[in-house]
Amino acid sequence: MTGTVEHGGALARAIAEYGGEPGDWIDLSTGINPNPVPLPDLPVQFWSRLPDEDLFEQASRAAAIGYGSAENIRPLPVAGTQSVIQLLPQLFDGDIAIFGPTYEEYRSRFQRAGRAVDLVARVEDINDSHRLVILVNPNNPDGRIVPRDEVLRLADRLAEQGGFLVVDEAFADLCPECSVAGDAGRQSNLIVFRSFGKFFGLAGLRLGFVLAAPSICGAIRDGQGPWAVSGPALGIAGSVLPDRQLRNRIEDRIRRRHAALHGVLEEADLTIAGGTPLFMLVDDDRATALHSHLCRYRILTRKFHYEPHWLRIGLCRDRDEEARLREALAAFNGPGGE
Amino acid sequence: MTGTVEHGGALARAIAEYGGEPGDWIDLSTGINPNPVPLPDLPVQFWSRLPDEDLFEQASRAAAIGYGSAENIRPLPVAGTQSVIQLLPQLFDGDIAIFGPTYEEYRSRFQRAGRAVDLVARVEDINDSHRLVILVNPNNPDGRIVPRDEVLRLADRLAEQGGFLVVDEAFADLCPECSVAGDAGRQSNLIVFRSFGKFFGLAGLRLGFVLAAPSICGAIRDGQGPWAVSGPALGIAGSVLPDRQLRNRIEDRIRRRHAALHGVLEEADLTIAGGTPLFMLVDDDRATALHSHLCRYRILTRKFHYEPHWLRIGLCRDRDEEARLREALAAFNGPGGE
Repeated sequence: MTGTVEHGGALARAIAEYGGEPGDWIDLSTGINPNPVPLPDLPVQFWSRLPDEDLFEQASRAAAIGYGSAENIRPLPVAGTQSVIQLLPQLFDGDIAIFGPTYEEYRSRFQRAGRAVDLVARVEDINDSHRLVILVNPNNPDGRIVPRDEVLRLADRLAEQGGFLVVDEAFADLCPECSVAGDAGRQSNLIVFRSFGKFFGLAGLRLGFVLAAPSICGAIRDGQGPWAVSGPALGIAGSVLPDRQLRNRIEDRIRRRHAALHGVLEEADLTIAGGTPLFMLVDDDRATALHSHLCRYRILTRKFHYEPHWLRIGLCRDRDEEARLREALAAFNGPGGE
Repeated sequence: MTGTVEHGGALARAIAEYGGEPGDWIDLSTGINPNPVPLPDLPVQFWSRLPDEDLFEQASRAAAIGYGSAENIRPLPVAGTQSVIQLLPQLFDGDIAIFGPTYEEYRSRFQRAGRAVDLVARVEDINDSHRLVILVNPNNPDGRIVPRDEVLRLADRLAEQGGFLVVDEAFADLCPECSVAGDAGRQSNLIVFRSFGKFFGLAGLRLGFVLAAPSICGAIRDGQGPWAVSGPALGIAGSVLPDRQLRNRIEDRIRRRHAALHGVLEEADLTIAGGTPLFMLVDDDRATALHSHLCRYRILTRKFHYEPHWLRIGLCRDRDEEARLREALAAFNGPGGE
């Protein structure tokens, strides 16, 4: 598998196959909060001027508060975690291990660069030759969590062998107890990626942060070049990230929608194999048929070529969407459904 | 010169040295239209959803109309031309020639990648070994224009020797007669970069376009990875780029401000060495002193370490700003000024 990765969010492709207009569809194919944070007022300069150092620093300080970075660690704004994943092959030499299956762009980018990758399932599979280990925690799509203590022990062990640990915490906003964001950089070989768009429901912004030692952030910033992150993205981050009350309200709303989705899937007798508060993973032999069935009801979910019995289902926006999903699932289970 | 390039737009650094608040300053250090196009209404999905293929295609079609690309050539949206400049060393092998002096990031990125670069002044300086030639046309900062016929002849010649020509038309919006945007891709070794933010006054968006053969656009898109351009940027491009009347109004306004700036500089007896409708280049032995003098008047211009007698001055937003510039220049020329 060295070609292009098939990503979620491809509503256009589903429409081409199953018909309808974008407004007819419920897109549950991503792990993005479907209720975006209200946009703050943005001064026109955020749009008109090149995003300068002040705006960049302001977003960095906001992220330090929001993600609880260690003292003296300045989170680096990036144009989405994806943009850093692409730089990894040129930033790190040596053998690579990726905890998998996981977000496929990691393996894909190293393989395109002609680099060998070991997919590992457990910490015990890491060996002395690994110079870079990648852990998505909580994992996408199965939600597997490696406890914080274990992550820190792995970072220590890798430090002894001159290796680095990247922890992608794209889905850790609602799992602070498993996050090592506050340890990044203090343990100098520990690098943490945070995603802004998933929790805040603003994936169109293209914004993420790297928490790491200054030398690593410097190399990534150099690789990204000047003005890599848009002014509106930096401005919005500066405004909403430090707002604890706002974050609490977003978290409450995500948890309500997650509980509701859980109820809908249980009602339909689906086996829930894992997930995070932003999505659930269904394990079912009929997953492929279920995906097609839901598409006929204009509901898009995410299937996985490497685990055809899996289906990832993101949060509904509200009760109306949950009712539509419930109805579609009932029709799948009912007589003549499948 | 292999280190970091010093860029315009660094108002924060000037404030640190000369004081004042951002609102006190007039920033004439860039070549960006100081009167941004009014932002169109953006549906919340542009912010909330991952920018999908539909939105991407819509921006591409808008750019095809706006920039007049050849039939069957689909302009590639990128997160600012800068993001493509950084990919060039990995996309092109062989000897490099850059028409210079010009925007410094070109040379800098190749040099950081350990690649030799020939800076050339004339078409005759291109030799048979060059596999990639870079021409900023009109040039930044001196405004030098290579006529369209000559650009096309150069592309032909490079094609014969298996070479490619990149023409950076960041400042060509007001010079359609020199643009080869309509020839890009049709001549398969001809690659054109267009900047969205400079003409429309929205540099914070981070948006540009590559016009080239599908194989080249594909390689750049692959290098950029999925979702490289933000949803708001794609949405705004889709809305404003095809609007000929809007573009005409923007052009008229730029030409008025350019004429006014020209008048102010002539009144101050400054030698104008070149420029484009979006900036003027002053050639003066006192350029360094003039830069500092203007900073004391809270007016930021752009100096060049490689040509210390040059000063680039961008457009004022309105007559009030022009009056402040006129006054500051009069004080420089007046008794006890310098």
